[in-house]
Amino acid sequence: MSKIDRALAELGLTLPAVTKPLAAYVPAVVTGNLVFTSGQLPMIDGVLAEAGKVGAEVSAERGKELAQICVLNALAAVAAEIGSLDRVTRIVKVVGFVASDPGFLAQPSVVNGASELIGKLFGDLGTHARSSLGVAVLPLDAPVEIELIVEFA
Amino acid sequence: MSKIDRALAELGLTLPAVTKPLAAYVPAVVTGNLVFTSGQLPMIDGVLAEAGKVGAEVSAERGKELAQICVLNALAAVAAEIGSLDRVTRIVKVVGFVASDPGFLAQPSVVNGASELIGKLFGDLGTHARSSLGVAVLPLDAPVEIELIVEFA
Amino acid sequence: MSKIDRALAELGLTLPAVTKPLAAYVPAVVTGNLVFTSGQLPMIDGVLAEAGKVGAEVSAERGKELAQICVLNALAAVAAEIGSLDRVTRIVKVVGFVASDPGFLAQPSVVNGASELIGKLFGDLGTHARSSLGVAVLPLDAPVEIELIVEFA
Repeated sequence: MSKIDRALAELGLTLPAVTKPLAAYVPAVVTGNLVFTSGQLPMIDGVLAEAGKVGAEVSAERGKELAQICVLNALAAVAAEIGSLDRVTRIVKVVGFVASDPGFLAQPSVVNGASELIGKLFGDLGTHARSSLGVAVLPLDAPVEIELIVEFA
Repeated sequence: MSKIDRALAELGLTLPAVTKPLAAYVPAVVTGNLVFTSGQLPMIDGVLAEAGKVGAEVSAERGKELAQICVLNALAAVAAEIGSLDRVTRIVKVVGFVASDPGFLAQPSVVNGASELIGKLFGDLGTHARSSLGVAVLPLDAPVEIELIVEFA
Repeated sequence: MSKIDRALAELGLTLPAVTKPLAAYVPAVVTGNLVFTSGQLPMIDGVLAEAGKVGAEVSAERGKELAQICVLNALAAVAAEIGSLDRVTRIVKVVGFVASDPGFLAQPSVVNGASELIGKLFGDLGTHARSSLGVAVLPLDAPVEIELIVEFA
């Protein structure tokens, strides 16, 4: 059992099966020692866990949970490319898009669902740069979409 | 005639002249063996092919055609930097921004206009990671904006 | 005094202290010879310089000034990682997110606040690829958010 798998298990989590892309692309691509993931939606077993805008139909707290689901999907995509998450040497960048009610301004607290899980799993190797954006609408009316750039050896 | 030029010709397409940036930047930059393009609008001969939001003034089908125009502009920018698209070893990442009517949720089908053309031109080297986002408004009221990260040798 | 520090001084500018992230991440990460910054808001001494949407509460001209503040924060984050901005060999990519009134279409002119400052500071090494997007809302209701990818030696 790999170190990161153990860390996941301690949190009561497991990597999901890699989410099938919605269209003509792949979940992640390796170039050099970087993995670029596709934007990951909060899909569970191929179904969107929840739809709607954060700050309206979806609470900030629920948005944070959904961001965590996005990260699990992103890490599953990374693991499928590089074999094991134990090869990760740095989570370089997280970009979090939050489908936001116009009055909702706490995008960072939603994307923290991604950042905090990464911190728990990867420790110092997980300290990443990050951008959080509020967008009008995401594919399938998803509340959150997360993409990663990951360095590995 | 290069391989990719032939593939373009078979689709009845040609690379356009590189679109002049709207401001103080350049169409693409090389770092190491990667090319990062600027966000490309659906410009034809320096004029925006169409304005408006997808799902309102612009249909999803038309949005898909516009995404293809964006990709041609992006590939023209890449070719201008590296000399020939035959040097491309991987299309690493496509990010597609769709200026969306609030009720429009099919951003992935629009950005497929980009992905499918890349697949036809580059085959396996064209299988890319991708993020599709719905945004409120794009420069010049463009319906679509596409950026690429491309690996070359 | 470094070359870039001199260029800043000639413009009457200084690098700010690195802006504390809003959440569980860091201002910039180095991978290989690239620095990826977090999305930077127009913070001055830890306080958002101005809130609101460009084209509504915030003018395009003011948005441009705020984009310049974002870049100073981003460069401060880069300098903190690599020691001196004189090590920069290329500003590779600028992504500018403009929180936009639905009728505001001049995102590129706002993001020019970033591009023009970079040009003044870095000359040819500052000619970058760029994407400008209009988004519904940014963290803390910030009008602008800027992220950079920077190459260094």
